[in-house]
Amino acid sequence: MAIGLATCAAPVEPPATIPGDAAAQADPLPSWNDGGSKRAIVAFVARVTNERGADFVQQAERVAVFDNDGTLWIEQPMYVQLAFTLDRVRELAPQHPEWSEREPFKSVLAGDLVAALADEHRVLEMLAATHFGNTTEEFSAAVERWIGSARHPRFARPYTQLVYQPMLELLAYLRTNGFKTYIVSGGGVEFMRPWAEAAYGIPPEQVVGSRAKLEYQVRDGLPVIARLAEVDHVDDKAGKPVGIQEIIGRRPIAAFGNSDGDFEMLEWTTAGKGARFGLIVHHTDADREWAYDRGSPVGALARALDAAPARGWVVVDMKQDWKVVFPGG
Amino acid sequence: MAIGLATCAAPVEPPATIPGDAAAQADPLPSWNDGGSKRAIVAFVARVTNERGADFVQQAERVAVFDNDGTLWIEQPMYVQLAFTLDRVRELAPQHPEWSEREPFKSVLAGDLVAALADEHRVLEMLAATHFGNTTEEFSAAVERWIGSARHPRFARPYTQLVYQPMLELLAYLRTNGFKTYIVSGGGVEFMRPWAEAAYGIPPEQVVGSRAKLEYQVRDGLPVIARLAEVDHVDDKAGKPVGIQEIIGRRPIAAFGNSDGDFEMLEWTTAGKGARFGLIVHHTDADREWAYDRGSPVGALARALDAAPARGWVVVDMKQDWKVVFPGG
Repeated sequence: MAIGLATCAAPVEPPATIPGDAAAQADPLPSWNDGGSKRAIVAFVARVTNERGADFVQQAERVAVFDNDGTLWIEQPMYVQLAFTLDRVRELAPQHPEWSEREPFKSVLAGDLVAALADEHRVLEMLAATHFGNTTEEFSAAVERWIGSARHPRFARPYTQLVYQPMLELLAYLRTNGFKTYIVSGGGVEFMRPWAEAAYGIPPEQVVGSRAKLEYQVRDGLPVIARLAEVDHVDDKAGKPVGIQEIIGRRPIAAFGNSDGDFEMLEWTTAGKGARFGLIVHHTDADREWAYDRGSPVGALARALDAAPARGWVVVDMKQDWKVVFPGG
Repeated sequence: MAIGLATCAAPVEPPATIPGDAAAQADPLPSWNDGGSKRAIVAFVARVTNERGADFVQQAERVAVFDNDGTLWIEQPMYVQLAFTLDRVRELAPQHPEWSEREPFKSVLAGDLVAALADEHRVLEMLAATHFGNTTEEFSAAVERWIGSARHPRFARPYTQLVYQPMLELLAYLRTNGFKTYIVSGGGVEFMRPWAEAAYGIPPEQVVGSRAKLEYQVRDGLPVIARLAEVDHVDDKAGKPVGIQEIIGRRPIAAFGNSDGDFEMLEWTTAGKGARFGLIVHHTDADREWAYDRGSPVGALARALDAAPARGWVVVDMKQDWKVVFPGG
């Protein structure tokens, strides 16, 4: 039943809506076990696409937003962008001889990640040194080089193959039913755009994320967009509805997350009028992936998990609900 | 030859590309006189849509950006958003008895616009008093009420009927050829989104503009997005390429403007590799609309006009190139 990665790059433009009963189609979610989560997804899509129903939603308003880390792809043992940051410290080290004597760079270069990641200040310092002071095109090229060659420490696969197969099917299913699918992530927007289309079928203009302050500059007659050493927007927690309003300008009707960083996005989405859908991916599968929620240093899930029943948010039990986790099984 | 406004609301999603020679279709630009401007537009579209040609551009990369004021709709005798601002001062005055004694509100209420608009500081004070301190939904509702009832002082028509018919045809023509059309304007994004889809067929998520700082708040259990009294982004001049990168994340291949505020957007667009297109609407028609360029307090055009020949930007002569200016003639 496994479906290869080649199927991920679904058409970017949603095809015309298939009116009527979406549930009557051939199973569009083959990697989802039959159960409450799958039934809730299919029932919601059927409600909003049924032109004769009270909950019909015009195609233009079918906006679905997805967190990225831990919702669409793996976020353990560390956020992928942090792995990129550490590798980029190593890559840039020859241009910075002073790093061999300066923390946290010294620890990264010595292979002591515990020391390098000891506190948030050290992480921010590495982010600043590796993410800013370049142009958007230079940064994008660095991300593309890295994502094409890096391997996950446990699964020894490219990170773009550690996306969740059931979520790929869900993205494609929503698009087939006229939804526009967006990423709304705490990760850097320019870190995600270079590979999101190949991995998820989500084009650059449908990626919302944290961003550096940008500045238009003309250098020797050649225009560039410089990434300044200043954070312009943090697209996490209460920053997610703000990012949605800035970039999309419509309130979504469906939101998908996995951590407390997604609470406000779920709240904003499901507090709107009419049919709404909220879903939380609960990481419960230590064998096939990871099991974590409360108190996890990555992707902590407590407040949103506690609020889910009263707010009607579907909680996916990864171990029970998913037949496979990654493409290829 | 006039085409009614009903034809403006073209399909939002671009239909599949019609491959081959775009110029061979029935005239898609009937309000454009045959001449260099029209021929340049048609030739560009033919080049980038010809799958067998060296300049073919994949549909996903066919991004076209349009300034709004003076490019898609009228900007004389004052920016439409300024007319909205003045009317909103009058509308809100009963809630602000102190305005009857305080400038610039006192002058607006007394009908003395010369005094009210005497300097930039006064305009900014009115913008702050009328645009901020509300929620996105409240502001959007205020814009919708106003745009449905306000009339232009010279033409006595709703502003949404003072859009340029030749530009509506151009938007539709580009979309028919697989382009995604965006507004990139110095105007407020939340001022444009409520009516841009009906007027131009451009959905909210394809409108880039200046914006207030936003904040997510929960008031008595109800989430809202508040518009704070702080400007977050000025989408003019060098701010236009920044807005394009933030929202779209791709460099456009075609840009359309009318003033020096569009210089950097035209520069950024046409400096890219491959086939590129830049166009300036030159207001030369005092009889049917307005004639202005250098030194105009609204929509000044000097630097971009001087640079156009060397950079290959097409300069549209409104009087010569357009058969009609507004829908309905």
